[in-house]
Amino acid sequence: MKKEKRIKAVFFDIDNCLYDTSLQAERARKNAIKAMINAGLAVDEKKAYALLTKIVRKYGSNYGYHFDRLLEALGFERNPRIIAAGIVGYHTTKLAYLVPFPDTVPTLLQLRDMGYKLGIITNGLAIKQWEKLIRLGLQHFFHSVIISEEVGCEKPERKIFEIAAKSLAENPEKCVMVGDRLDIDIEGAKKAGMVTIQIVRSKKRAKKPKNEFQEPDFIIGNLKELVDVLNSLQ
Amino acid sequence: MKKEKRIKAVFFDIDNCLYDTSLQAERARKNAIKAMINAGLAVDEKKAYALLTKIVRKYGSNYGYHFDRLLEALGFERNPRIIAAGIVGYHTTKLAYLVPFPDTVPTLLQLRDMGYKLGIITNGLAIKQWEKLIRLGLQHFFHSVIISEEVGCEKPERKIFEIAAKSLAENPEKCVMVGDRLDIDIEGAKKAGMVTIQIVRSKKRAKKPKNEFQEPDFIIGNLKELVDVLNSLQ
Repeated sequence: MKKEKRIKAVFFDIDNCLYDTSLQAERARKNAIKAMINAGLAVDEKKAYALLTKIVRKYGSNYGYHFDRLLEALGFERNPRIIAAGIVGYHTTKLAYLVPFPDTVPTLLQLRDMGYKLGIITNGLAIKQWEKLIRLGLQHFFHSVIISEEVGCEKPERKIFEIAAKSLAENPEKCVMVGDRLDIDIEGAKKAGMVTIQIVRSKKRAKKPKNEFQEPDFIIGNLKELVDVLNSLQ
Repeated sequence: MKKEKRIKAVFFDIDNCLYDTSLQAERARKNAIKAMINAGLAVDEKKAYALLTKIVRKYGSNYGYHFDRLLEALGFERNPRIIAAGIVGYHTTKLAYLVPFPDTVPTLLQLRDMGYKLGIITNGLAIKQWEKLIRLGLQHFFHSVIISEEVGCEKPERKIFEIAAKSLAENPEKCVMVGDRLDIDIEGAKKAGMVTIQIVRSKKRAKKPKNEFQEPDFIIGNLKELVDVLNSLQ
């Protein structure tokens, strides 16, 4: 009789795990500023970018009026033409960078071939997160997609990881969580009993664990390395 | 001494005048339905399209939850994946069709060469209308852009046409209004004293005047014909 696999399901974070969210956000904001300057905003590009970054941090990324607040902060009146130019520059660029990492699709396909069930555990607005998966071309890859808005709890709460495991009829111990954030992805998943794998795409962005639950079981530099880690776990 | 021109300024409507808004809306809605079906919505394509058209008419085009209402009307629960698929299909298509008519840019350039001041008079949200002009590549063409949200009145009120004329320091009698809607563009402009030109891009969509103010001074089939009409007015 074939021995049953120890690990049955692999869960992923979306942002900075399946695609380069940080690069996308930076480029989109920079192009928004350029477009606003082209539409008549008399401002230094670098200064405006720094201010916009602050505003996004203050109001959160799902807020709808970043450019209104930017004009205010710069001491200008509300100007629909300039705000619209910012929106166009931002969204055009956002779409251009909404593409998977080169190893994302090949690895997901390989994991499916190996018999793993695949899932997503992500914080955010359900429609917005689904929009990302659809534009990334990933909407059909996952057996379960768990989004905080829909389940009423969010990472790092252990509950969302338990809900995710249950959605694939598995115990957390038979699940792996792959994500970039120690305080969001790793801490919660470890508390729930999952095997935790931190993906560090950029060493610049890597942070240090602040408690034992933030210490990942494994660290990988890209998704391809996930296959070896999973093989070592069986 | 050179005789002064009778007509000094030409105002345009945006929708169905500078680009094919009706075609864009139809294609965007149809592709939204296709994308929602691809994401799992079990529904007849034609039936869903007819229903969506009704919903857009009921809630207006600036409403943000057409697809939520569609799922309700079809008897399904709110489903973020399906709604997101609709949004992606809709917006990707909308952008693809947000291009000027082939005669738009050449005619606008010719009119500027002829010494006319150019303007926009449009109903709608200021940021949304500017977004259209920017994506159409027309943001730098007009000496004045008057949007109902910004001036607090809308077509067919004569006031918005008077504000527009004043913004170019002209009397309405020295202005031409070009638009497709008799009840919106022609009636208001005529009451304000402008010369009115109806553009009928599609004879299928043409309606009959309901009063004397809805009778345009000229009817043209495309923007190129505008040059001859303007020459005849001098």
